[in-house]
Amino acid sequence: MREYLENVRAKAPLVHNITNYVTVNDVANILLACGGSPIMSDEAEDVEDITSVCGGLNINIGTLHKLSIGAMFRAGKKANELGHPVLLDPVGAGASALRTDTALGLMRELKLSVIRGNISEIKTLAKGSGTTKGVDADAADAVTENMLDDAVAFVKHFAKETGTVIAVTGAIDLVSDGQICYVIRNGRPEMGRITGTGCQLSGMMTAYITANPEHVADAAAAAVCAMGLAGETGWSRMQEGDGNATYRNRIIDAIYNMTGEELEKGAKYEIR
Amino acid sequence: MREYLENVRAKAPLVHNITNYVTVNDVANILLACGGSPIMSDEAEDVEDITSVCGGLNINIGTLHKLSIGAMFRAGKKANELGHPVLLDPVGAGASALRTDTALGLMRELKLSVIRGNISEIKTLAKGSGTTKGVDADAADAVTENMLDDAVAFVKHFAKETGTVIAVTGAIDLVSDGQICYVIRNGRPEMGRITGTGCQLSGMMTAYITANPEHVADAAAAAVCAMGLAGETGWSRMQEGDGNATYRNRIIDAIYNMTGEELEKGAKYEIR
Amino acid sequence: MREYLENVRAKAPLVHNITNYVTVNDVANILLACGGSPIMSDEAEDVEDITSVCGGLNINIGTLHKLSIGAMFRAGKKANELGHPVLLDPVGAGASALRTDTALGLMRELKLSVIRGNISEIKTLAKGSGTTKGVDADAADAVTENMLDDAVAFVKHFAKETGTVIAVTGAIDLVSDGQICYVIRNGRPEMGRITGTGCQLSGMMTAYITANPEHVADAAAAAVCAMGLAGETGWSRMQEGDGNATYRNRIIDAIYNMTGEELEKGAKYEIR
Repeated sequence: MREYLENVRAKAPLVHNITNYVTVNDVANILLACGGSPIMSDEAEDVEDITSVCGGLNINIGTLHKLSIGAMFRAGKKANELGHPVLLDPVGAGASALRTDTALGLMRELKLSVIRGNISEIKTLAKGSGTTKGVDADAADAVTENMLDDAVAFVKHFAKETGTVIAVTGAIDLVSDGQICYVIRNGRPEMGRITGTGCQLSGMMTAYITANPEHVADAAAAAVCAMGLAGETGWSRMQEGDGNATYRNRIIDAIYNMTGEELEKGAKYEIR
Repeated sequence: MREYLENVRAKAPLVHNITNYVTVNDVANILLACGGSPIMSDEAEDVEDITSVCGGLNINIGTLHKLSIGAMFRAGKKANELGHPVLLDPVGAGASALRTDTALGLMRELKLSVIRGNISEIKTLAKGSGTTKGVDADAADAVTENMLDDAVAFVKHFAKETGTVIAVTGAIDLVSDGQICYVIRNGRPEMGRITGTGCQLSGMMTAYITANPEHVADAAAAAVCAMGLAGETGWSRMQEGDGNATYRNRIIDAIYNMTGEELEKGAKYEIR
Repeated sequence: MREYLENVRAKAPLVHNITNYVTVNDVANILLACGGSPIMSDEAEDVEDITSVCGGLNINIGTLHKLSIGAMFRAGKKANELGHPVLLDPVGAGASALRTDTALGLMRELKLSVIRGNISEIKTLAKGSGTTKGVDADAADAVTENMLDDAVAFVKHFAKETGTVIAVTGAIDLVSDGQICYVIRNGRPEMGRITGTGCQLSGMMTAYITANPEHVADAAAAAVCAMGLAGETGWSRMQEGDGNATYRNRIIDAIYNMTGEELEKGAKYEIR
């Protein structure tokens, strides 16, 4: 895992983010923390120029607007032309028709390198419809040890079918390119009590795949391990009275300080 | 007060927020801290679906756009149809015609459960016009011990007239359903040096009234007490050199850690 | 420098910000920390009313939208009519045609008091076009001791030509009114690893020039010194394991606690 992190620090990839306004500041700060550099633009007339000076594109539909949908397609097509990796974070797919349809449309019209979401969002995309409860995964969908084999098979199949690396994050994280599947057990449940740890991961993952273009699935898995490990390191620094606001800062701080060696040692994964 | 907090933790209400982009991240994190769950959507084509999967709706006009105004009405009408509580935070009413008119229009066309604002904003809504200085209350309007009787009478009357629970926050906080008025003395003046403590309270209050639908005024008052108490607890953890950025985090942390028992003991209120 | 800071605390200027949604929360909190008061509005129909109740206007094009461009011109013209200082932060000028053209248009049609940007952005405005890499300055443009004389001459000339105070921030900061040039050496390189320290400075600088209308260049320089000094103070409070998220908070905290005397002692500048 260490080389994927170190390539981010060495290459300092510039990542274009079309992302929601809820967690955008944290996305920018974690991109800086990991060694990348963020730029945000979601105006249709602006995005082609911006994505052209960047190395990768992160599309997040967390606060989707009709105006920004056009920008997502224009930026995505330009990034595809330039051979830049494009990541889709289908926040809330399944919770509204607009979100589901937009995510499916982006999948049809763009060449995506990675789709990263929770299990309910990814199942919605696989089925073409869904009933996600808000922006969190349904408990009924959760990836647990009991149904891990089924989940791995589902993610592998969906990755093969779409030709896209699929990253499903939750209590256990799965990353597959259709051939192999990383099963990752870093992280802590309290990360779900912070808004935007998923959005942050998507931003950072875009930096990882941009800096490691020959190893998209491996780099995506490394980003998942790094985020989970930061969740563990950050938690270990919590003091009495600290809560989710401080935890948010400690996680980004942990990414800022993480070395390739620490990631190598702390990453908890198996490949199936 | 304890049962209102404990109901939030037990029911984990999902709150739809149409709110400003200045403080939206803090609103999301405090909703998670108190035990609720946030989702943000302000696209007119998206809001009906989103509000349908939620339990309550928080409308905040802090960075009003013409595009999001339509979304506020559509979401509000759908929430009304579904019987969800709707809270209005009329940020800056009185400071611009667009804000005043939009807030008054929302009051006319929607069934609101609670309106929460500072005294200048609420007076603007009561009079139908105003001259608020920005997003802070005018000093001339401030609720002080000297003119408390008048303020209580005003808030009770406006609540009765509108059939809406009115929550006025400031040095002394008032919450009335038209019959009784909670007079609350939690909090610290330094909370005014953080952006968005009012917005955060509105988000959290929506979770409280959603989880306690039979006790809207009481639950709204409990949220006010919880926010003020968190301001006190957070301040007690401040160290030399800390300022408003750290204070912001400590307040959200205090909400994260607050128990029903602590709220019961720490709430400082009388009922008039 | 002390009087410029103290005037901000004494006058509590209300600043209207049309700014990007990435760093807007930090801009609001640093304005409160320095003693000012923020209000954000970027809806064309709202901005004239809002800017009328304020003392100064901060225009930042960091996440430019076609809708907000109109708001920038309307707010700027109203602020000019009222004699309010207007600051332009041309984030990403040079990185896209829309940003470059909008910044140049604002320069042509508005009376600007200050333009504050990194060296690549300012060079883009001086040349009328540019090739900025994202939102950070190009390494080739960096203001270093070696080419300081040239940089000072450039900034003085551009300030004279435009009749606007020019503030270029980077490793060495330059502030000129066309006659003199402040050369400022406060700050730390790690500030570049936090998103939005530049945006924060622009917000705070608007408060400084609003509270010191007879001394625009001096007040702008004082704001630069204060921000850099806060970067130094904040860094001195960092503990093992802290990173850019915590550093962000410590800088705002340092502004919150900074006295005029501390600024006077800590400011490192010469006038050329």
